[in-house]
Amino acid sequence: MLSKRQSKYFKSLQLKKYRQLEGKFLVEGAKGVEEVLRSSYQVESLLGTAEFLHSLSESVKSRANEVIEAKEADLLQVGTFKTNKAGLAVVKIPVQSQLSADKNELILALDGINDPGNLGTIIRIADWYGINNIICSEDTADVYNPKVINSTMGSFTRVKVSYGKLKEFIAKSDCRVYGALLEGQSIYKSDLKPGIVLMGSESHGISEELRKLITDPIKIPGRGGAESLNVGVATAVVLDNFFRN
Amino acid sequence: MLSKRQSKYFKSLQLKKYRQLEGKFLVEGAKGVEEVLRSSYQVESLLGTAEFLHSLSESVKSRANEVIEAKEADLLQVGTFKTNKAGLAVVKIPVQSQLSADKNELILALDGINDPGNLGTIIRIADWYGINNIICSEDTADVYNPKVINSTMGSFTRVKVSYGKLKEFIAKSDCRVYGALLEGQSIYKSDLKPGIVLMGSESHGISEELRKLITDPIKIPGRGGAESLNVGVATAVVLDNFFRN
Repeated sequence: MLSKRQSKYFKSLQLKKYRQLEGKFLVEGAKGVEEVLRSSYQVESLLGTAEFLHSLSESVKSRANEVIEAKEADLLQVGTFKTNKAGLAVVKIPVQSQLSADKNELILALDGINDPGNLGTIIRIADWYGINNIICSEDTADVYNPKVINSTMGSFTRVKVSYGKLKEFIAKSDCRVYGALLEGQSIYKSDLKPGIVLMGSESHGISEELRKLITDPIKIPGRGGAESLNVGVATAVVLDNFFRN
Repeated sequence: MLSKRQSKYFKSLQLKKYRQLEGKFLVEGAKGVEEVLRSSYQVESLLGTAEFLHSLSESVKSRANEVIEAKEADLLQVGTFKTNKAGLAVVKIPVQSQLSADKNELILALDGINDPGNLGTIIRIADWYGINNIICSEDTADVYNPKVINSTMGSFTRVKVSYGKLKEFIAKSDCRVYGALLEGQSIYKSDLKPGIVLMGSESHGISEELRKLITDPIKIPGRGGAESLNVGVATAVVLDNFFRN
């Protein structure tokens, strides 16, 4: 049974202020909850319907510090889903390690991606292509926002998302910096090697101060009338070009 | 000035039932309205704020059968946007021509894409890559749904979206049929020629009866842990591979 006090506390984690205060975030739905229970994240509380809890093995359930049987109405009260017949997990936010770039790795850097759905989609794409690290500017959406977590479809457990001053990080990294610019070279003809792939926001593109740090300006050639691609879509096409060879 | 009767009539076009009855649909926001005024679509009514109407040339405005000055509150009342300081157009739904496939053309076929945002994104992607025709199964979202139209960012004016029985259309076409399947061949190694690119819904994939018609099963190679890509993202990656050579 979920007490009123617990319900209020869990629900408060929908807001960044309380996530920061408590150091916890929410994961909703069968797929996300199962993935987080199988990951190295620390699960504080697992709320689930009788049926969902029954479907999990004892060893998986024992990964949670506490298990609370709940009704769907409770899950909807605490979370953001419109339907949830499975469960919800309250998970500890890991401590962010120092930002660093390995020259042999392809890293994604996000500049001001403030739409949570776009950030979630990008994390899922990164996971598809095996990217392990995403570095975000401080004005990028919060990865622990329930909308971001839920739209990653569990991929947040495999991709490390860090926040910091992108300018300093990139300047120090001594890596190649690929950035999508209108005046860039066709990505089909570019020399695509490990480095940093910098993606800007859909409304403002890559900020002026970061644009200067781009060593390899690239563009996705268009043939039709659309002026641009959605930033998630563009990220996928760029990464696909890196990995297709 | 917008009368109550007009407001009610325009607003009714948010629903498919009334769009079919009236043969009209809504376009919202500066970008969409400007693009539709410059296209071959017939604009029945142009609603706009004084400022927005002032920003349009007389020849562009004259493309609308009637021009009505409106307040932002009127635009929000009629449409679906949360803010709209520009305008809204009431546009005639064109008559759908016979479905046909040209063997020298790349055509997109959508099987049961029922999320309006995904359909809008796919239309924008098709426009980026210069695809002129999208053929949809009858259970695909309605292109004239305001959410679809608005998420195309004006691309609906350049890409023809038709609905029909996909099975008959594909069977008759005598074209190559590319379909994304788990057991497909790496798209990086496939022979990509003009034909039909078939994309299925995110939850159910390509339906059983259409799967049989695929001549060239393809897949986007993944390297990480994600089980799948969003259908819009996958469409973009597939099309990029067709056009990169």
